Amino acid sequence: MKKLINDPLKVADELLDGLVEAYDGQCKKVGTRSIIKNEIADNKVALLVGGGAGHEPIYHGLVGVNLADGAACGDIFAAPPPDIVLEATEAVDRGNGVLYLYGNYAGDVMNFDIGAELSSDSGINVSTVLITDDVCSAPPENKGDRRGIAGLVLIVKLAGAASQSVSDLKDLERIAKLAVLHTRSVGVSMAPGSIPATGKPTFEIDENLIGLGMGIHGEPGVSEIPMTTADDLTPKMLDLIIEDFINDTEIEELSKGDEILLLVNSLGATTMMECLICLRKAKEYLNEKGIVVYDTAVGPYVTCQEMSGISFSITKLNDELKKYWDMPCESVCYTKL
Amino acid sequence: MKKLINDPLKVADELLDGLVEAYDGQCKKVGTRSIIKNEIADNKVALLVGGGAGHEPIYHGLVGVNLADGAACGDIFAAPPPDIVLEATEAVDRGNGVLYLYGNYAGDVMNFDIGAELSSDSGINVSTVLITDDVCSAPPENKGDRRGIAGLVLIVKLAGAASQSVSDLKDLERIAKLAVLHTRSVGVSMAPGSIPATGKPTFEIDENLIGLGMGIHGEPGVSEIPMTTADDLTPKMLDLIIEDFINDTEIEELSKGDEILLLVNSLGATTMMECLICLRKAKEYLNEKGIVVYDTAVGPYVTCQEMSGISFSITKLNDELKKYWDMPCESVCYTKL
Repeated sequence: MKKLINDPLKVADELLDGLVEAYDGQCKKVGTRSIIKNEIADNKVALLVGGGAGHEPIYHGLVGVNLADGAACGDIFAAPPPDIVLEATEAVDRGNGVLYLYGNYAGDVMNFDIGAELSSDSGINVSTVLITDDVCSAPPENKGDRRGIAGLVLIVKLAGAASQSVSDLKDLERIAKLAVLHTRSVGVSMAPGSIPATGKPTFEIDENLIGLGMGIHGEPGVSEIPMTTADDLTPKMLDLIIEDFINDTEIEELSKGDEILLLVNSLGATTMMECLICLRKAKEYLNEKGIVVYDTAVGPYVTCQEMSGISFSITKLNDELKKYWDMPCESVCYTKL
Repeated sequence: MKKLINDPLKVADELLDGLVEAYDGQCKKVGTRSIIKNEIADNKVALLVGGGAGHEPIYHGLVGVNLADGAACGDIFAAPPPDIVLEATEAVDRGNGVLYLYGNYAGDVMNFDIGAELSSDSGINVSTVLITDDVCSAPPENKGDRRGIAGLVLIVKLAGAASQSVSDLKDLERIAKLAVLHTRSVGVSMAPGSIPATGKPTFEIDENLIGLGMGIHGEPGVSEIPMTTADDLTPKMLDLIIEDFINDTEIEELSKGDEILLLVNSLGATTMMECLICLRKAKEYLNEKGIVVYDTAVGPYVTCQEMSGISFSITKLNDELKKYWDMPCESVCYTKL
């Protein structure tokens, strides 16, 4: 695998420098490896995201207009260390608290939690909401154990919009939790990406199999199934999401007339062509059930290098979430009018 | 290569259906394989783009708000046939003429030209501007022979904005030509994509070489050079663009203080990480020369399946082009506030 990089051990630092350049003056780098918006209003409840590098354009590409105020960026596939979380927290804080919103991975949880303690020692009020949208990573009764995958784009978009108008941290925490509760994803993997420092594959999978529910780093999913067609696979994946809404006692199932957001994510090398072909079937299948797609996003938002794979994410809208979705936003990762 | 498709011979039709779904009611399919906006104002000078499928999200993903009014979509890597060009032309025409704006490839030119004749027979006034931004495909004195590559995103964005306010076709043609004159690109290829119908690679390249100036389908470039680092390659590529502005007698060279648009495009499998690392070096190099990047776009806009490669495109701004760039736009391919 030929990669256009320099020192393989410096890719995380260099891509962050490039990301700052991509923002054309809207964002700046602070400390070791954080990026924050240049303008954050006094007293704003701040939204901080973050995670390992190598999954671009997330998480650090979700800093922007009506999105996150900052991101703590780790090394490749590694959580940001606590001191980076602290430097990012101090940089975004405007005296009204900071919400941490990130994917539920053990390393991230440990480091953000320590970062929260350090921030608290500095007098900054911090709350945390974990993104746990991957329905294949734990059953509904243990949904707090689930991993965060591409649904994070929808969740950060909603929380970012909410963060513009909430008056306190508790309210932003409530809305972010609501967005997490209403958002579910299912992914598949077909081929691994490569680790920039070694060139080695991130996982192995038989050339005739698809990893159903496999995580973005190759974490185990529900099962390995034979390679199949877009039209066969798409309803299987959506059914896992639909069933999860049925089986979760904390939320009502998706019913006829319900409005949803639909995100089709490429893990990297899976082409926009394939995503669109799967989207076509997804809309047909959802239409048959009377579920109304209010807005669609499609593209490589949450990647793992040149990994091949796709995921569907669904957010069940209510009036409050819809209001936040309708706000425009702009960032390197996701922009809408 | 595992591809999530159905019938390999139907991918172009099915991806177009998916694209219409991605527009959530803003666009519709017309005829055999065209997509147009649902709302095109009476008397609007219409902008029609198009080309072969398989390069998503372009061209058909550039239909949208303040962008193209419609696109004529061909089969995979094949120009849209004249009857599809005609059906798209008839669908976007509002009585004030239609500008064809597309990449300079022999098949496209032939079919769009026949489509223009057929449209003329139907009483529709058509003009054509070819996109010829790839500086490695012909010398400046024959720049009309150049291929169209990723600079098309900047050019269609500018022309789409202009098409909202021009009063006649001639003026839109003038502005589109201005955008083409001011836009130059250089690309490299590292590994081929695969042809959906056969799974075969689109071209071959040694595993230790980079195709400098190679086209998006593997067309010959300037030379094959040894695989190198991002920081070594980036100035080499930018120099080809900078020299082209110097050597072209129709436009002034890029000078200190000039403002440009900079687009870093991934051909598919090249990661956003790599694009950002190259962008970092590009900004540093341009800064040294005093060239001011007014706005940056980075991502997989013009792809060729899971091809590995990258390109830089630069548009030299003037007051008129800047005014059109500053307008917001929205589409599946490119959105800005």
